[in-house]
Amino acid sequence: MRVDPSAVIERLRALDQRSGGRRVAWSAVWSGERPRLANDLAALPGVGVETDAAGNLWATLRGRRPETLVLGSHLDCVPDGGWLDGCLGVMVAAELLATAAHAGSPPCTLAVVDWADEEGSRFGHSLLGSSAAAGLLTSRDLAGLVDHEGIPIAAVLAEHGVNLQTVNDAGARLTWVGAYLELHIEQGPVLEAQGRSCAAVKGCGGARRMRLTFSGEAGHAGTVPMEHRRDPVRAAAEFIATALRRARDDGGLATVGELQARPGTPTAIATACHATLDVRHADVGALDRLEAAAVETAHAAAHDTGTTLGIEPLWSIDPIAFDSGLVADAIRHTDGRPALTSGALHDAAALARVGIPTAMVFVASRAGISHSRAEDTSDAALHTAITAFVALASSTMQRLEAGRLARSPG
Amino acid sequence: MRVDPSAVIERLRALDQRSGGRRVAWSAVWSGERPRLANDLAALPGVGVETDAAGNLWATLRGRRPETLVLGSHLDCVPDGGWLDGCLGVMVAAELLATAAHAGSPPCTLAVVDWADEEGSRFGHSLLGSSAAAGLLTSRDLAGLVDHEGIPIAAVLAEHGVNLQTVNDAGARLTWVGAYLELHIEQGPVLEAQGRSCAAVKGCGGARRMRLTFSGEAGHAGTVPMEHRRDPVRAAAEFIATALRRARDDGGLATVGELQARPGTPTAIATACHATLDVRHADVGALDRLEAAAVETAHAAAHDTGTTLGIEPLWSIDPIAFDSGLVADAIRHTDGRPALTSGALHDAAALARVGIPTAMVFVASRAGISHSRAEDTSDAALHTAITAFVALASSTMQRLEAGRLARSPG
Repeated sequence: MRVDPSAVIERLRALDQRSGGRRVAWSAVWSGERPRLANDLAALPGVGVETDAAGNLWATLRGRRPETLVLGSHLDCVPDGGWLDGCLGVMVAAELLATAAHAGSPPCTLAVVDWADEEGSRFGHSLLGSSAAAGLLTSRDLAGLVDHEGIPIAAVLAEHGVNLQTVNDAGARLTWVGAYLELHIEQGPVLEAQGRSCAAVKGCGGARRMRLTFSGEAGHAGTVPMEHRRDPVRAAAEFIATALRRARDDGGLATVGELQARPGTPTAIATACHATLDVRHADVGALDRLEAAAVETAHAAAHDTGTTLGIEPLWSIDPIAFDSGLVADAIRHTDGRPALTSGALHDAAALARVGIPTAMVFVASRAGISHSRAEDTSDAALHTAITAFVALASSTMQRLEAGRLARSPG
Repeated sequence: MRVDPSAVIERLRALDQRSGGRRVAWSAVWSGERPRLANDLAALPGVGVETDAAGNLWATLRGRRPETLVLGSHLDCVPDGGWLDGCLGVMVAAELLATAAHAGSPPCTLAVVDWADEEGSRFGHSLLGSSAAAGLLTSRDLAGLVDHEGIPIAAVLAEHGVNLQTVNDAGARLTWVGAYLELHIEQGPVLEAQGRSCAAVKGCGGARRMRLTFSGEAGHAGTVPMEHRRDPVRAAAEFIATALRRARDDGGLATVGELQARPGTPTAIATACHATLDVRHADVGALDRLEAAAVETAHAAAHDTGTTLGIEPLWSIDPIAFDSGLVADAIRHTDGRPALTSGALHDAAALARVGIPTAMVFVASRAGISHSRAEDTSDAALHTAITAFVALASSTMQRLEAGRLARSPG
């Protein structure tokens, strides 16, 4: 099968012009963009389009066998995100589906998926749609989540036709899924530093994410002696400075992306300071130690400042390895050099965790920049990566047709 | 002259019910509240009401001499502020003016002022109206100020009929002002700790206030190695932790009331982190050293994290002493014990700085809490303080009638 990389890039440029950087999951821009994709794919011969119980958008082309190769990623982005993160994987899948649909019935069934809310930008819970489809969510995981304005997740999802109690019903769709492949930008500096256009990915590192709230006591900036203060901003600053230093020393990653003092008056000691902490590590033991150390640091900062601390777990995923056979294929179809471990999370991790043979291909990110409007990749690298990914998809369809891919116990 | 303290407290309770905690300067609630006061005072016999070029509200009762005793404070409050800060001084002045107006022409002219934007909650510039009247503002001080949404101060003030270019015209009104007195809550824990209801105030400590913006580089929380990051949140945390520790060690005060990371995504390294810093000290040399050390700390944090730093001065005032004669009177009319230095800023400081004989009376704040809905003072302490303040005002009117108060060169 052949796909014209220029057609994929054209789809991406048009998408970026319409809604670039504004497709935050559950926003009007995001939900306004998806029907365009749905209508586009539904117009293809033999293709049916549906949205599942978790809000994931599926386009399916029935093949000569029921075993299904799923290709996809996510249209949602972080606020002010770039033109490639997520939508590259959706658009290459859409273009490949279009090619296959026009070529007639493929050797196995082929599906494109646009997973809902991969980024977790609003509620702090990444991979929402793919985790639901994989049966990895419990209503306990989600029920308490609110956005930064305090709006509960259940109310927002209901507006988009998603019932929090039944999101795992999306799993029914995975019954015949034989393999999942995803093309994504690296979002880091490694490939560029190694002079590579693209590479196979052998798995994803793990992450722990939480929201911390230090609560103190209001007071006038000019009258309350420093030693009498219960200042949540001081607590947050001490915590952040220490936690980030610790992550660096331990070879992990720690990010405080959300940080806000309330009520936010220059002349008053704050009553509360909110922060999110995201810690990551490729090794599960080191990840657990990093998380435990961060929590301990936060409690110590609260104790030292006379503030109180609330910690709300937002999200957690252990490191996961992809299917060794598919990874070997991906290495062969890219540049033959060693596969990477992804520091970023991907929907592929949710599927791999429940035993679906999974692999990914990364294309280099310019200067490693991501989650930013400055995110970019050269057209040359995109051409190379798209061609490699399509070749991997073709060989995977042949393996599925031949019954040479088995699901492991999830 | 006698004023019923209960009538003052009644005015304050009614005000709090209508607009408590929501009278942020230049808000609709604030500008909706002022005509009530204006109409109330304009209905008194012999009282004229006007708003000056800086948005200050004046009610004047012509006396037997042109020399004018001004009594006042401010109706504006910080967001979620208490029921006494500022409005106590306005309402005691209003009640005193009502009493005087019904008694006939007073020995000297008597004026009530509600200064505009004492708190500086929106644009970070305290004492705006009183500083303008005192001729202490330059358009350079104000022109660049924006609120946290980026709206320029000139546009907002224009909506309230205030032209930024002509705010100092408000100074014309001070020509005949012979003395300024202000009753205010302490907003700190000292009087309560000393078992006093109220006290004379001998002056105000100084303050320096600035907004700092650390700017870094966006990146994905899972892919950018810690040592490659230019993380503005880390810069802000290191700066805040160090600056607050330094202020404590130097016997000063430092407050970061506003703190926010942008864009505020849990999974992305922030591109910018904004913070305000307010430092205070009773000694001008120590204040300057504290400010210089904070700026140096901020530059060091930016350097260590590879971020860039922008500093916007918001406001600055040197420590100022009140009129020694009026302070002696205030001591006599309160409890005879030593006067305090105010750590909080007050409009009185602006008037004292240009040579107007000025004094203040503080009433105790429960637990020292201020700039909070929990701000409170017992009715008993309010009765004592109001009675003392009215006695001080009466004796000051007699001194003005007798020509025994002289302005010093401003």
